[in-house]
Amino acid sequence: MGRVTVRRPVLRIAANGKRTRPDTLAAEEPLEIRVNGKPLSVTMRTPGHDVELAHGFLLTEGVITDREQLATARYCDSPGPDGRNTYNVLDIALAPGVPMPDASVERNFYTTSSCGVCGKAALDSVKLRTQHSPASDPLSIDAETLIGLPDALRAAQRVFDSTGGLHAAGLFDSRGELLVAREDVGRHNAVDKVMGWALMERRVPLTGCVLMVSGRASFELVQKAAMAGVPMLSAVSAPSSLAADLAEEQGMTLIGFLRGSSMNVYTGQERVASVESA
Amino acid sequence: MGRVTVRRPVLRIAANGKRTRPDTLAAEEPLEIRVNGKPLSVTMRTPGHDVELAHGFLLTEGVITDREQLATARYCDSPGPDGRNTYNVLDIALAPGVPMPDASVERNFYTTSSCGVCGKAALDSVKLRTQHSPASDPLSIDAETLIGLPDALRAAQRVFDSTGGLHAAGLFDSRGELLVAREDVGRHNAVDKVMGWALMERRVPLTGCVLMVSGRASFELVQKAAMAGVPMLSAVSAPSSLAADLAEEQGMTLIGFLRGSSMNVYTGQERVASVESA
Repeated sequence: MGRVTVRRPVLRIAANGKRTRPDTLAAEEPLEIRVNGKPLSVTMRTPGHDVELAHGFLLTEGVITDREQLATARYCDSPGPDGRNTYNVLDIALAPGVPMPDASVERNFYTTSSCGVCGKAALDSVKLRTQHSPASDPLSIDAETLIGLPDALRAAQRVFDSTGGLHAAGLFDSRGELLVAREDVGRHNAVDKVMGWALMERRVPLTGCVLMVSGRASFELVQKAAMAGVPMLSAVSAPSSLAADLAEEQGMTLIGFLRGSSMNVYTGQERVASVESA
Repeated sequence: MGRVTVRRPVLRIAANGKRTRPDTLAAEEPLEIRVNGKPLSVTMRTPGHDVELAHGFLLTEGVITDREQLATARYCDSPGPDGRNTYNVLDIALAPGVPMPDASVERNFYTTSSCGVCGKAALDSVKLRTQHSPASDPLSIDAETLIGLPDALRAAQRVFDSTGGLHAAGLFDSRGELLVAREDVGRHNAVDKVMGWALMERRVPLTGCVLMVSGRASFELVQKAAMAGVPMLSAVSAPSSLAADLAEEQGMTLIGFLRGSSMNVYTGQERVASVESA
């Protein structure tokens, strides 16, 4: 536990010479998520906040919709080479009556039998599963406030400064106040940890919130935001075409290239308030 | 086909005002890879070089080790909403005698029954599967040459300049000559496209080559390089702890933060030639 970073020696080569020094790397370890004892998924993640990660994963994959559907979460015995528990296997017990997830969650998410495999089928599949559509969310947030989010997220990243190797995700309210920030070597894991926190705090659907991510906005991240009812997703880098398509269909505001004093608003621009001269 | 980018309107908000203009986004579409007619995997990818992607995926997941084990690759009929083929389903026929892959490839890769789920088990699993260990590869490359690789890769990226949204992977020889570059919304897909190209060109194992990636170096990317016998992986950003562990065990050179005129060499520094005063 708490193995968020690992130290190892590195040979630094630069214009002024080369030298060996210790370096700090972001920890990466497999986590197996089991449901009622049955293996469901293995993800490579940065250890820490694993229970949140499992909650968020099950929420954003459509297995559960509220905290009460999850009865218990406990680490299994999974000894490593030194015989000590690795804390890399987490077993989730669902509440009575909650159906077991399909083992091929991923496949079902992107394909439908009616339409084959295409972007439209992927959008439809999310539509079928979302319980908390953000379409009618009245969130309004100033462009000025949005411009401050990347720095606020970076300030919350304890690890990034030392490793440069972690994706971050943070939830903000409409005044730009940070609710929670999480980091991970996997961008989807950072978002799942945030969503799991929200579920455990009984804040889902995340009405009036902005999800900010440190990297790019893919279809998968918009999907995760939609499953938790987030009305606005902001990314430091570019969105993909299907991310914008899904945000549009879900009525979500999607912002990309949020850096410096500018941003691109791809969908849902009515939620971004700015004075005309801004 | 050829839908590498998609145009859509965007509201640009900057210090000097706001205006709506067309923007170019990286295309993202699902690709289902079938083997002998049976669905194996769905990945969100940027369309293009799909046959290479499938070859590379099957190589780096340990399903095939050379080109002859793959008999044919053909797009299935998979109509989209407009009734036209989406070219999002690719069926791979394996050559006679090649065993069908296990449906739970991913799980098997990270876990072993002997040791539970841990980093060591993930390393051991790669060791069991690699046919082309890079440990004895005599590659030697100048630090000066390495420093030029990120710019050479960026120059080869046709799409990046217009979208900012694509990961890139490129193969270079020891003189820094680019052999191939591929792009994708998914970093693992960009690498699989490169590896598939190499397999189809009968260049696997990739003795004497450097794989350069535009982002971070995760366990998964080192694993893919190891499966293709690549002796050196260089990344613009940070590696994870398990990426460095795997590179060390495989005898691969791992370089991170290769940008400007400097780099960090995490493992296999004997392959980086530099004058003492460099």
